[in-house]
Formats: sequence, C-alpha cells, structure tokens
Amino acid sequence: MSQPAGRTILASTIAKQYTEEVTSKVKALGFKPKLVGFLANDDPAAQMYASWTGKTCESLGFTYELVKVNKNDLETAIVDANQNDDVNGIMVYFPVFGDKQDQYLQQAISPEKDVEGLNFLYYHNLYHNVRFLDAPTNEQKSILPCTPLAMVKILEYLGVYNKHLHYGNRLYGKNILVVNRSEIVGRPLAALLANDGATVYSADINNMQKFTRGDDLLMHRHKVEELDYAEYSPEKIASQCDVVITGVPSEGFKFPTTSISNGTVVINFSSNKNFNDDIKERAGLYVPSIGKVTIAMLLRNLLRLIENKKIRQSK
Amino acid sequence: MSQPAGRTILASTIAKQYTEEVTSKVKALGFKPKLVGFLANDDPAAQMYASWTGKTCESLGFTYELVKVNKNDLETAIVDANQNDDVNGIMVYFPVFGDKQDQYLQQAISPEKDVEGLNFLYYHNLYHNVRFLDAPTNEQKSILPCTPLAMVKILEYLGVYNKHLHYGNRLYGKNILVVNRSEIVGRPLAALLANDGATVYSADINNMQKFTRGDDLLMHRHKVEELDYAEYSPEKIASQCDVVITGVPSEGFKFPTTSISNGTVVINFSSNKNFNDDIKERAGLYVPSIGKVTIAMLLRNLLRLIENKKIRQSK
Repeated sequence: MSQPAGRTILASTIAKQYTEEVTSKVKALGFKPKLVGFLANDDPAAQMYASWTGKTCESLGFTYELVKVNKNDLETAIVDANQNDDVNGIMVYFPVFGDKQDQYLQQAISPEKDVEGLNFLYYHNLYHNVRFLDAPTNEQKSILPCTPLAMVKILEYLGVYNKHLHYGNRLYGKNILVVNRSEIVGRPLAALLANDGATVYSADINNMQKFTRGDDLLMHRHKVEELDYAEYSPEKIASQCDVVITGVPSEGFKFPTTSISNGTVVINFSSNKNFNDDIKERAGLYVPSIGKVTIAMLLRNLLRLIENKKIRQSK
Repeated sequence: MSQPAGRTILASTIAKQYTEEVTSKVKALGFKPKLVGFLANDDPAAQMYASWTGKTCESLGFTYELVKVNKNDLETAIVDANQNDDVNGIMVYFPVFGDKQDQYLQQAISPEKDVEGLNFLYYHNLYHNVRFLDAPTNEQKSILPCTPLAMVKILEYLGVYNKHLHYGNRLYGKNILVVNRSEIVGRPLAALLANDGATVYSADINNMQKFTRGDDLLMHRHKVEELDYAEYSPEKIASQCDVVITGVPSEGFKFPTTSISNGTVVINFSSNKNFNDDIKERAGLYVPSIGKVTIAMLLRNLLRLIENKKIRQSK
C-alpha cells in the first residue's frame, strides 16, 4: 500500500504554541494560579482526565487541586470555592447526576472562575458574537467554552481559516459538517463557525440543521434552518464538505469513511474513535483527538479570568 | 357507598384569595402590566394553556400578548422582549426543542421579566433560602418558581403549614413524599419543604432521596441523602407520610391508592391524573390539580418584578 497523500496531525503538535504562550504568561504573573477540579463520580475516564489535567497544570506552572466530593455536597463545595480568594479557576468533571441537575451545577460555578466557559453568560455571548464583558468600555474579554474554542484554534492551525479574508469572515465559502449538537460543544461550535462565515451542517440523531451567518446584523447572530434528513443525511452532506467534525460519544459508532471525499479535513473530538483507521487514506488532514488543545484553552481561559479580575480591581 | 370522610379541594377555591389580592394590586398600580407568552410548538395542550393564561390575565386586569414564533427564532424574540420597556413579564410555553436547548432558552429570559422564576438566580436563592436580591439592603424580594410556590400556598391553605410554629419551621414533624424530581418542580419543591422543616422523600424513577433541613446553618441549605430504593419505595414510604404529592407526566401512571393511609393530604400537580377516583375515599384532603393556583402565583410574581423595578429606579 502506498503512503496516503494526507497527514495525521496530533493535538500535542497543535497545542504546542498555546502551552508555550500559557507558560510564559504564567511566569510573568508572579504567582502560581490555582485551579480546583471537582470529581464527584466514579468514572475511571473522568479520574484519568482529572489526573491528566493535574499533570498539565503542574508542568505549565499552575497549582492544581483535585477535590473528591459526594455529589450531594458538590454544590456547597462549589459555592465555597467561588468565595475562596485562593482559588482562581474551578472546573467540574461531568457527568455528576447525568441529568438536568448537571445544568444547574454548571451555572453554580461563578462566571469569574469558570475556566471551561460553561456559564450561560459565556454561551450567550458566543451565540450573539459578543466579544467583551464590559461594553462599551470593552476591556474585559469574554470567555469561550473550551472545546469549541479548541476547535477554532485547530482549524486556524490547519489553514481552514483563511488569513487573507477579513477577520470574522475567514471561513467564507467553507462547508463544514458537525456530527454532534450537544449544548456543551456541538451547537455552540456550529454557531461559532457560522459566525465566522462558514455554512455549517449540524447533525443530531435523525435531524439536520444548517447554520449560516444571520442577516440580522444588529444581533450578530447566526441563522438556523431545519433540513430534510432523508435528503441531507450526514453521509450525503459529508461528501460535499471541506471539513467533517465528529463528536459521537459511543464506542460502536463509526462515521463511514467512504462518504468522505479525498482531501477533506477530518477532526474527531469524541473520546471514542469515530473513524476507522482507513480514514487516513481519505482525509487531507486528520486530527484523531483534541484533548491537549482543549486543556491548553482551559488554562488560557484561566489566565483571561485573572486578567479580567485585575481590570475590575483597578477600577 | 357512604360519603367519604375526606374532602376534595379545587384549585380555584385555593386560588381565590390570591386572584383577589392580585386584582386589587393591579388596580392600585395605575397601569395594565403586560405579559408576553411565547408559543413555539404545535402542542394543543400548550395552546390551551396559552389561551387560558390569556383569559386569566385579561380578567384580572393585565394585558396579555401571545406571540407564536418559529423555534429557531425564539431566542431573538426573547432578547427583543427583554429590551422592550412595554413588556413587564415574559413566559415561554415549554417544551420547545424538548432537550437541553430548552435549559439554555430558560436562562435567556431576563431575570427582571422572568415571571415563572426559572432563572438560575432564582433557583439558587430557593435552594439556599435567600429571600432577597439586594442583600444587605433587602428591599427587592427574590422570585420563587411558580409551581413550587403554588404548592407551598396550597399546603398553607390546607393547614399543613402550622402557624403556631415559628416561621421557617412550620412543616416541622411532617413527612412528605414528592413523586417527581424534575429541575423545574420536583427538586426545588423538595428543597423548599425541607427548608421549612419537613422530612421530604423525593422519588425519581428507581431512585429515592431524603431531603431534610441541613445542619449547615450558614448556608441555609437542605441536606440530601440517597436511600435504598427497595427498602424505601414510593409505595412503602407513602403509607407513613402526612402528604403525598405527585407530578408524573404520564397518562398511564396511577399511584396505588392502597398504599396511601386514610386521612393523608394528597395533591397532584401533573396535567395527567396520577390517581384513580378511589383516592377520594382515602385522602383527607385531595387536590386533583393545581394550575389555577400556579397562574395566580405567576401574576403575583409579575407584580413583584414590577415592584422590584420601581425600587431599582428609585435609587
């Protein structure tokens, strides 16, 4: 078998510039910022992710504290951490209850310490393309949810964002399929990419939506249309897309390689492998996982939260 | 068959004092407050509820506007209504998407116009027994979610709250079973009742929790314990309870009458009938539905939002 024309790009390669940026910014701070991670489940995957967050934090100059807590005591623990001046950032390893109570807990983290960017405020700003927290002064930058932000940085690295186009328009002409429409990643990601000019096909189970730049310029908001699923199935759409992004949280799910056109940019953000290895023979650029970029974004968000706090305190 | 010893109490009877209170307060305002209801689904039940909200509003002196909107345009419509000074209150007839996106939309309504009390801020205050929005001044009262608030008012009316006990302790000694642990009603209701001194058994599918007054007095927060479901099934617990409250959104579900002790207070807040008619022979007081009290609370909340706005504007 001849060598495929495409290349596999590892998240560690893409993350490098951001971990370097984060490391030098932490040094300049003059103190070690503290991130607290709350673990309230017995999921070995979450445990592994937690220990990995810890290692990354320590290696880049942060302090990390893992707090194991009973799920029914978690809210109280979060409220305490919100009020603790020694804590700069807070994250929770979800799922905790695995139902809507997790959405409640997500909002319980103070926006001022919400390194993952899960607060309604931050999602609202994302959907409406609001970049600052303190209009009209516009000094404190808003936070973007880690994983969608990581995806933007990956697409920038891969050259899908075109620097010759105007800022805010750099995905113009690109067709992107996103297979996942979770509130945490898939839907905000589709909106982010549409706000940057792409035509985004957002697939959920048996349901397809098209996200484009809205024409309501005052709102800076994307437009969403429902598509007929039979005519616009993920497999049919994939073949016409420049980029295919998957995030299906299932061991068994594999996106059919044959529906991907040669040279497509393919990115998987699920912790499960959503492609068989033959994708490497199809994809132009293939990013099999994105975790290391996501954690770099999380620490970048932590530094931004500290910066925002400084600005508030200087008033 | 002899007449049952117990009585059925209709929501309209309980609502009367509140609709009267609301009507006289609206008259004193000097203007007709405007409530906007957004309907973005084709559910005939929601349509009926909407038309019923409208009639109640108009009959009590409010202006009601029903806005039918495509679900993908709903967020924009909410943001517009948030900014419209003519609109005093906003409600949405859920479900819209029927998934987590509904939780996002719930937060999109400005807390200042959120008549149903669905904002995170209000739930947070409920769970932590925070009564005011502007500590330490404590002029602006927090809003309680409509349905849990209606339930408290019903329990007060029925005499379950004992006025001879100190305020905040008036359910002391009461055992209450709540069959529903939704984030909208069941869980906050269990917390409210526990915060007032009750021992609350909160049943979800195959899962039972006990809510009691927490010992963390600084937090003013209830304590939650997981119980063994086999030992503490709803049927077993019901027989020991002073009050049984059900809210199971299923046509087929009937709570077994035989597991209810004679004289128990029984309240159903589901739009489905969760009891067969023979419950009237068991229950001491039976409230078959609560909608009319809920809508009175919604309008009461609207008046409170207007009052809070006045206080802010007078600063």
